[in-house]
Amino acid sequence: MQTVSSSITNIQMTEDLKQVRTVIDDLIKDTPDMIHDMISNLLSCSGKMLRPMMVVLAGRYGDFEAEKIYSLAAAVELLHNATLVHDDIIDDAALRRGLPAIHTIHGSKLAILVGDYLFSTCFVLAAKNSKIQHYDSLAQAVARICEGEILQDTGKFVFDPSVRNYKRRIASKTAVLFSLSLYLGAKESGCSETVCSVFIRIGYNVGMAFQIIDDILDFTGDPKKIGKPAFGHDLSEGIYTLPLILALKDGDAQLEKMMRRQSLSRRRRKKIVGIVSISRGMEDARGAAALYSERALREIGRLDDGYTKDQLLSLTSRLVSREY
Amino acid sequence: MQTVSSSITNIQMTEDLKQVRTVIDDLIKDTPDMIHDMISNLLSCSGKMLRPMMVVLAGRYGDFEAEKIYSLAAAVELLHNATLVHDDIIDDAALRRGLPAIHTIHGSKLAILVGDYLFSTCFVLAAKNSKIQHYDSLAQAVARICEGEILQDTGKFVFDPSVRNYKRRIASKTAVLFSLSLYLGAKESGCSETVCSVFIRIGYNVGMAFQIIDDILDFTGDPKKIGKPAFGHDLSEGIYTLPLILALKDGDAQLEKMMRRQSLSRRRRKKIVGIVSISRGMEDARGAAALYSERALREIGRLDDGYTKDQLLSLTSRLVSREY
Repeated sequence: MQTVSSSITNIQMTEDLKQVRTVIDDLIKDTPDMIHDMISNLLSCSGKMLRPMMVVLAGRYGDFEAEKIYSLAAAVELLHNATLVHDDIIDDAALRRGLPAIHTIHGSKLAILVGDYLFSTCFVLAAKNSKIQHYDSLAQAVARICEGEILQDTGKFVFDPSVRNYKRRIASKTAVLFSLSLYLGAKESGCSETVCSVFIRIGYNVGMAFQIIDDILDFTGDPKKIGKPAFGHDLSEGIYTLPLILALKDGDAQLEKMMRRQSLSRRRRKKIVGIVSISRGMEDARGAAALYSERALREIGRLDDGYTKDQLLSLTSRLVSREY
Repeated sequence: MQTVSSSITNIQMTEDLKQVRTVIDDLIKDTPDMIHDMISNLLSCSGKMLRPMMVVLAGRYGDFEAEKIYSLAAAVELLHNATLVHDDIIDDAALRRGLPAIHTIHGSKLAILVGDYLFSTCFVLAAKNSKIQHYDSLAQAVARICEGEILQDTGKFVFDPSVRNYKRRIASKTAVLFSLSLYLGAKESGCSETVCSVFIRIGYNVGMAFQIIDDILDFTGDPKKIGKPAFGHDLSEGIYTLPLILALKDGDAQLEKMMRRQSLSRRRRKKIVGIVSISRGMEDARGAAALYSERALREIGRLDDGYTKDQLLSLTSRLVSREY
C-alpha cells in the first residue's frame, strides 16, 4: 500500500512541477532568442526544484488555487536561479549542476545581466495573480539573501570562529528562501497565521539542516555526484564552514597551526580537508544538522495527516540523508 | 513674478526630494554598517534625481498622497542606482558622478551584490503603500531594461548601422524608466488612463531626447563637467551611437575606412571622435534629439496649466540644452 500511495503522490508532484515549468516557459518565450536560449538551458537542468516543490506542497495544504500557486512556485525558482547565476560569478565556480556556469560560457558581464533579468522576471511572475503582501515578503527575503551574501563575501579569508555568525550567514543564504517558499504557498492557499508560522519554522529548520549538510559534503562528498569541482571548494574560496569551525573549537593543534597561515596552498587545503573529514568537529556538525532536521520533523508532525505532511516528511528524510 | 513663482516651485521640489531621501535613509538604516556606508555614499551624490522628480511631478498632477508617492519615487531612484552599479561593472567605467564607482573601490564581486541589494530594496519599497498593478509595471520595466542591456552587451564591437535598432536600444536603456516614473506618479494619484498615457508619452520622448544628448556629449562634452573619463568612452567600449551611425550613413569615406578596422587604437578613436564631432551626422543627431524634445513639449502642452506642467516644461528645456 505504501508503495502505491507514494507512487501516486509522486505522480502528483511530477505533474505540479511540470506545470511550474510551463509557467516559466510561457514567461520567457517572448524574450529575444539569445536570452531565451541561455535561460532555458539553465532552467532545463534545474536540479532538485526543491523551492517550487515547497510552494506547491504548502499550497496543497490549504485551498489550492493552481494558477496562483504555480506562478509563485515559478517566481521562487527564478529567484533561486538568479542568485545562483550571480553566486557562481562571485565564487568563481566554473560548473553549475555539472555543466559550465553561465559566466563560464558567456563571461561575467553577460552573466550579471542574465541574473538581473531572472530577478525581474521573478517579480513579474509574482505580480500576476498575487497579493501585495506576498510581494513584500518576497522582496524582503531577497534583500536578506543579498545582505547575507555581502557579509559572506566581505568576510572571505577572515576566519570567524563564531558558530552564531555562521548560522546567521546560512540562515540568510538558504533557510530564508526555504521558509519563504513554504510560507507563500500556505498563505496564498488561505492557511491561518498559526499554520503559516508552522510552515515558516519547517522551512527554516529544513533549510539550516540542508545547508549544514551541503557544507559537510564540501569536505566529504564525491565531486562527481555533487556536480562541483574537487571538494574543499569553500575553503579555497575563503569560506569557513561549520565542520572546520567545530574542529578548531575542539582544539586540534595541527589544524590550528595550518589555519594560521596567510595563504593556503592546494596541498595544504587537501590536508585540512583530510583532517576535518575525520575530526570530532565533523561529527558535531552532523549532530547539528540532525538537530535541525529533528526540529523540522517535529514541526511537520504538527500538520494534519495527508499529502503535504507525507511529502514533507519524506522530502526532509531524503534531504538529510543525501550524499550530493 | 516668474522668478518668484519659479523659486516657490523650486522650494517645493527641493522639499519633495528631501522627503524621498528620508524614505531611502529610513529603509537602509537597519542594514549592516558596511552595506549602509556603501549605499549612502552612492546615493548622497546621486546627481540629478530626475526619475524621482518625475514620479513626484506626475503625482502632484492628481490626488497627491505624499507617503505613497515618496515611496514610489524612492523605489525608482533605488532601481536606477541598482542598474548604474551593475552597468559600471559591465562598461568598465571607473568613475560615477566624478567619484570612483563602487566596483572600483570594492571590486566587481561585491558590486554585483550591492546592485542586487538595491534591486531588492526597490521592490521592498514599492510593496509599501502600493498597488499590485504598479508592481507589475515596475517589474516589467526592469525586465525590459535588462533585455536592452543584454542586447547592447552582446552587440558590442559589432557595428550595426540601423537607426531603428539604436532607438530600440536606448528606449530600453533610458526611456522606459522615464515613462515608468511619470506613469507611476500619475496612476498612483488617480489620474485617468488618458492622462496616464500622456505622461507615458512625455516620459518616452524626454527619455529618448535625453539619451541621444548623452550620446552626443560622449563626442563633444567636457569630461570634467560630465564626470566620466575622456570622451569617446562609448566608442572604446564598442558601443556605436547615433552621431557615428548618422555620420557613416552620410557617407564619410575616411570614417568608413577607419571603422572597418578590427580594433581601434586610442589614437584612432580620438580621430574618429574628431571627425564625428564636426560631421553632418552630428547635426542630424542634434536634430533627432530636438524632434523628441519637441514631441515631449507638445505632449506636456496637453496637460492642464499649473505646477506640474510648468516644471515639466522647464525640466525638459534644461535637459535638452544641457552640456553635461
